[in-house]
Amino acid sequence: MAASRNTILRLINASQSSVCPCHGCRPAVTPASQLQSINQLRSFATPVQAVEKEYAFEVAASNLRFGDGVTAEVGMDLKNMNARKAIAALEAQSNLPFEVYDKVVAEPTEDSWRNAIDWARQHDFSHFLAVGGGSVIDTAKAANLFSVYKDADLMDFINAPVGKGLPIAKSLLPLIAVPTTAGTGSETTGTAILDITSRSFKTGIANRAMKPVLGIDTLNTESCPTAVHISAGLDVLFHSMESYTAIPYTERTPRPSNPILRPAYQGSNPVADIFSLWALQTTVKYLPRIAKNRDDSEARKQMLLASSFAGIGFGNAGVHLCHGMSYPISGLNKKGPKYKHAGYITDLPIIPHGISVALTGPAVFQFTAPSSPDRHRRALAIFNGTTESDPSITKIADSELGPHLYESIARFLDGLGVPRGLKAVGYKASDVEKLVQGTLPQRRVLDLAPGIGDIIGSDGKEHLTKIMENSLEY
Amino acid sequence: MAASRNTILRLINASQSSVCPCHGCRPAVTPASQLQSINQLRSFATPVQAVEKEYAFEVAASNLRFGDGVTAEVGMDLKNMNARKAIAALEAQSNLPFEVYDKVVAEPTEDSWRNAIDWARQHDFSHFLAVGGGSVIDTAKAANLFSVYKDADLMDFINAPVGKGLPIAKSLLPLIAVPTTAGTGSETTGTAILDITSRSFKTGIANRAMKPVLGIDTLNTESCPTAVHISAGLDVLFHSMESYTAIPYTERTPRPSNPILRPAYQGSNPVADIFSLWALQTTVKYLPRIAKNRDDSEARKQMLLASSFAGIGFGNAGVHLCHGMSYPISGLNKKGPKYKHAGYITDLPIIPHGISVALTGPAVFQFTAPSSPDRHRRALAIFNGTTESDPSITKIADSELGPHLYESIARFLDGLGVPRGLKAVGYKASDVEKLVQGTLPQRRVLDLAPGIGDIIGSDGKEHLTKIMENSLEY
Repeated sequence: MAASRNTILRLINASQSSVCPCHGCRPAVTPASQLQSINQLRSFATPVQAVEKEYAFEVAASNLRFGDGVTAEVGMDLKNMNARKAIAALEAQSNLPFEVYDKVVAEPTEDSWRNAIDWARQHDFSHFLAVGGGSVIDTAKAANLFSVYKDADLMDFINAPVGKGLPIAKSLLPLIAVPTTAGTGSETTGTAILDITSRSFKTGIANRAMKPVLGIDTLNTESCPTAVHISAGLDVLFHSMESYTAIPYTERTPRPSNPILRPAYQGSNPVADIFSLWALQTTVKYLPRIAKNRDDSEARKQMLLASSFAGIGFGNAGVHLCHGMSYPISGLNKKGPKYKHAGYITDLPIIPHGISVALTGPAVFQFTAPSSPDRHRRALAIFNGTTESDPSITKIADSELGPHLYESIARFLDGLGVPRGLKAVGYKASDVEKLVQGTLPQRRVLDLAPGIGDIIGSDGKEHLTKIMENSLEY
Repeated sequence: MAASRNTILRLINASQSSVCPCHGCRPAVTPASQLQSINQLRSFATPVQAVEKEYAFEVAASNLRFGDGVTAEVGMDLKNMNARKAIAALEAQSNLPFEVYDKVVAEPTEDSWRNAIDWARQHDFSHFLAVGGGSVIDTAKAANLFSVYKDADLMDFINAPVGKGLPIAKSLLPLIAVPTTAGTGSETTGTAILDITSRSFKTGIANRAMKPVLGIDTLNTESCPTAVHISAGLDVLFHSMESYTAIPYTERTPRPSNPILRPAYQGSNPVADIFSLWALQTTVKYLPRIAKNRDDSEARKQMLLASSFAGIGFGNAGVHLCHGMSYPISGLNKKGPKYKHAGYITDLPIIPHGISVALTGPAVFQFTAPSSPDRHRRALAIFNGTTESDPSITKIADSELGPHLYESIARFLDGLGVPRGLKAVGYKASDVEKLVQGTLPQRRVLDLAPGIGDIIGSDGKEHLTKIMENSLEY
């Protein structure tokens, strides 16, 4: 059905007389295209005055390729993309200049990012290839971003209010991501996370401009130790739970004045829901199988798909409380409890990311259940291995869903050998205040937390304190 | 988890000694990056000798934005993308040079494509914007492709064996697609369809390089007449049914020697399945509501999402028999029955695409049911408004699924006022032979048809004849 010239004009030119006349409320802002220098970009991030709610959502995901051994195709992909000089590994006979950067640290920090960025800025790369877990892929995303913005400071793009949270107006270089763990889903998202050691918490950059061009799921998790399978799988579990229960996108504020300002983490929406639910079902089914037997190849493949799917889910909907609280839990551990998780080969204290997220899981969903009983009921049915229409689920009153979910999640985590609460990794009741203080700056994710109220006022802080206290032991 | 230098080298360099040593079987081919001219590309499309089965699948989809009135953001999007000169409609004060092409015809032909291509080649566009139904978006894709390949002939990229089916090695210009019908899902796919009038059937180009950069679903279907809603919605219905029941990607041959040769239509796969099933459920629920009342805004929105979702499903899995047979059904109509569908404002004969697809629907799925009973059982449950675990579904023997599905689909179509078979649009039993002859060249989709056997031998032709005969009336 061809639209007439007038229809086209009417539809498109709705945007002319003001920035957004349908919802006409905003002062016009400089279009991002005129903001090619970092100083111009900085001026772009003016505070939004009105606080209208969102009316739209976007879905962006990397292309995915899935199959046994497809990593072998990557050399051809780079050639097909006319790669001139890649940062990665390709032998001499491929005729493609390349450099390998292998100094990525697990759970990256400002320092490790700066090292990778400095190194990448010294080369003239045309393409990036990241082979590894979330730490590696995230570091590659940062190196890519800051190679393109050569004069930007790390804090220019780090999420506000920790950093400036500037939009990304330039196209980044093509990045191929080949995950070797089934966890972060970083191969499909525009998210990169780092530890701000000076502040003892993690945060990062979440922008769809940073997503890889091709996420390749393969047999590469064969070498993954059981402890890493479990921790990574818990990340998948809570990516899906949090994105599915995040506030609806229509409840998020502010409505952006320009689509480039629409965040990647938008709140739950119909597309992300499908991915998040699928990933949740798959993880509940297959993660316990891998924990029992890491040679279960069907379970490994399903968890890889679940990891990517949960990535598409949370990459477009966002995460909330478990992730927000995990950042100080893992960050403060380095000075505080110095807990070192069994099965991780490192001399440094480490609460692996997935474990730090899971520690608050039972208490978080007990708290959020009243915000969307239907969604929490569906999740409960999945944890209990049944369907929503089963009488064992339908008989539960809305008000009782929270305690039931607490029990079911706790039982699931216990079956995987996850430490039973914050005390089990060495925190004390007296640490709660510090952990809450470290959570409060995580606005990017707290803004999506259902039922948490005004995070700047006393309400939010009270809720976080309660959840942290309820996570001390179970 | 950081991969060591050696791990990276081992993983990546697997591809060096031959094109694909893991499955080492192919002579090396010229990498696509060295094939920038159309003549070089033509040499690339050498026939593949081995006929190994596929071992991987890819998923590519456009970014989507969904919301009431988001078309108003398109002007900002083009500016954000640094558009220099767009082919579309933007008023003077946007400071963006633009041209409007409004000569797209419904159900495009070679001639109408050539006109649009010639016109686009005369301008120096940086961006494309398509506002309309599938005909408009498909024509814009073609204009984009052939503006970038300025010396290519139409047949160079048309699907083999009708055309040469060459790969696309260059990046196309950014195309924003704004659908005004809920049908083709063209806003998310790399597919463009045209009528090859000289041969009285339709075919097209299906290549993920052609997918738009942003598909924007909006309120734009408000103006759509009921007849167009129904026909477009039937396209959604059969996109989802066909992609969900296509042969599994692991059964498709040949395994490509270079990932750039992996077709967009790959066969059913776990990611496409999720989208296709969701779209099927949604269409069965909401299409009858729109048919009753086109002011049902919830149904309109759900059908738009379903259209895009089915697009992601079939855009990565493919369609098969209903679509393959629809191309001669609509093509031969222009010379033959000259049926003109009620509610379409045109002086020319037209069997709208969705109707032409639906005419064979009952007979097709009766035929395909034995190829994957579980999938067809699930589809039957959806048409019958129940679940697979319902006794009314579980009691049906696998061998009886075909007749049941025939009945359920026929009843559904009848409820929407679809003509009851080929005779109802004017075809006679004596036309079956011609219709089958027009279907046989549709290799791109017939290759994905389950149970059809060798399409070049007599088996395939016999099956097609039987299905066409069973579609004469019901």
